[in-house]
Amino acid sequence: MPAKPFAALVDWGTSNLRLWLVDSQGAVLAERQSAEGMGGLDRTAYPAILEGHLSALEAAQDLPVVIAGMAGARTGWREAPYVATPAPLIGLFQHAVVPEGASRPVYILPGVCQREDGHYDVMRGEETQLAGALEQGLDNALFCLPGTHSKWALVENGHISRFSTVMTGELFHLISRQSILRMSVPEDGDAEADPDIFDAAVDAALASGFALTSTLFSIRAEGLLSQGTKTNATARLSGLLIGAEIAAIQSDLKRYGKAYLIGTGKLTRLYARAIARAGGEAIMLDGGLLVRRGLLACAISLFDHEFKE
Amino acid sequence: MPAKPFAALVDWGTSNLRLWLVDSQGAVLAERQSAEGMGGLDRTAYPAILEGHLSALEAAQDLPVVIAGMAGARTGWREAPYVATPAPLIGLFQHAVVPEGASRPVYILPGVCQREDGHYDVMRGEETQLAGALEQGLDNALFCLPGTHSKWALVENGHISRFSTVMTGELFHLISRQSILRMSVPEDGDAEADPDIFDAAVDAALASGFALTSTLFSIRAEGLLSQGTKTNATARLSGLLIGAEIAAIQSDLKRYGKAYLIGTGKLTRLYARAIARAGGEAIMLDGGLLVRRGLLACAISLFDHEFKE
Repeated sequence: MPAKPFAALVDWGTSNLRLWLVDSQGAVLAERQSAEGMGGLDRTAYPAILEGHLSALEAAQDLPVVIAGMAGARTGWREAPYVATPAPLIGLFQHAVVPEGASRPVYILPGVCQREDGHYDVMRGEETQLAGALEQGLDNALFCLPGTHSKWALVENGHISRFSTVMTGELFHLISRQSILRMSVPEDGDAEADPDIFDAAVDAALASGFALTSTLFSIRAEGLLSQGTKTNATARLSGLLIGAEIAAIQSDLKRYGKAYLIGTGKLTRLYARAIARAGGEAIMLDGGLLVRRGLLACAISLFDHEFKE
Repeated sequence: MPAKPFAALVDWGTSNLRLWLVDSQGAVLAERQSAEGMGGLDRTAYPAILEGHLSALEAAQDLPVVIAGMAGARTGWREAPYVATPAPLIGLFQHAVVPEGASRPVYILPGVCQREDGHYDVMRGEETQLAGALEQGLDNALFCLPGTHSKWALVENGHISRFSTVMTGELFHLISRQSILRMSVPEDGDAEADPDIFDAAVDAALASGFALTSTLFSIRAEGLLSQGTKTNATARLSGLLIGAEIAAIQSDLKRYGKAYLIGTGKLTRLYARAIARAGGEAIMLDGGLLVRRGLLACAISLFDHEFKE
């Protein structure tokens, strides 16, 4: 007997969308992805884009859809207002909104915000990955999602209790390509090529009294002064920035002993390396799997809820 | 009796040059400035530019010239190799070089470098201002020169013992104009308009456990979440960055109780305010006067030396 399609799950971010057709156990029956991210879309464009992808999948028929991510931003399809911390991961579905223009049941999940003076923060999409991790049994744990803007989140008793967005990736890009350090950091530099230099930079950033902005220029000066000595400005800049990020959550890392890293590729490997330097264990998780699990859990609750009404 | 011209003193930076005709007491008889900074010049262009400015000043005749700044960089008129820390401020003239192509005696003063692992650093021009401050009797003191790349220098027993370049100004520009925070920081923002917000940001940056890169995004999130509350993202970003810079030298500031600020204008006033928040006294000095004093002292030593040969 072929698996019965249950729902279409969508991770609709700023730059991309990914859509999966799943059965009620979350097994993927079909999938689509495209660069039609929220960043480039007018509010009115969403229904046709969604239907376009669904109509390409025969099994999608009139299945309901659950969406996480930036499609729920104020400038997205329809705003799904933020749930404030401590935000219950099981209850996200209760704050889903139904956007206009869809020809089938469509739900957009909310993001999460933190209203704390000096620590205001927002996320959209990551909370659904964390809900997926909770489904997987990961509670009372520290999570890190590396990226242009990485997120660190603490999940305690099924709630996102605290989180922080760190602009490490964007700063690396701006500093290495547009500041005076662009003359020292090659465009095709590889931080993994010199792990010893990366590690030393992480160690420097983890040391007490470290000051990032007072250290950056030394990368340029080292290039001017240390002729002949082996340097890798990419590894050093990367290590200083990622190290500074981990220094900021070092007390949480000590408390939990490990961090769950949601991601893949070189950047995630560098984070794992830096977490190890800080004495923590890094455990990698698949972000696509987690967001599907989180979306599926919400879908089940939403449809169940719908049925009861 | 009219004052007798003694030398032409030049502060030749990356973006600008300033030239003063002085008597042997340092009194300014005439001056010139232009945007012919090192950054835009070919090595062969220097003699004609210098002579152009001097020929416009009748009194300059065949006076000798002493130059400080980027004209002595490897990519300038002629490289005047760095003197390493601890660098004696009185002896700078001993490392002056004579460039090619000049039709009169011309000397270019060296910069100063710090060859210390993880703290490599260079300066060109600021050392001559510090030499001027020493001439003024300021020894065993902490100096700060705000700018795109600010410099902090410790002068001990007539030597630059330690210094640090901080990319605060450049980072402020990149972050406020090109990162995601550009949507929060207005182009015409004024950090001085809300001194309470600036002060609070400085205080946050001075507090133990502060992590700059983990705090920046809160400026964006605050704008999204705190509707109605008064915010000034310019003041907050400026306070966090300048505060982080001062946090890095807080132990020196505690030790000396004060910092001599070489500069003028809004940026220097913000530094003075932040230094006060850190419990220090900020004393403003005129950078133009200091560089002339430093150049004059070198000129006297050089011409004296020349005479003896």
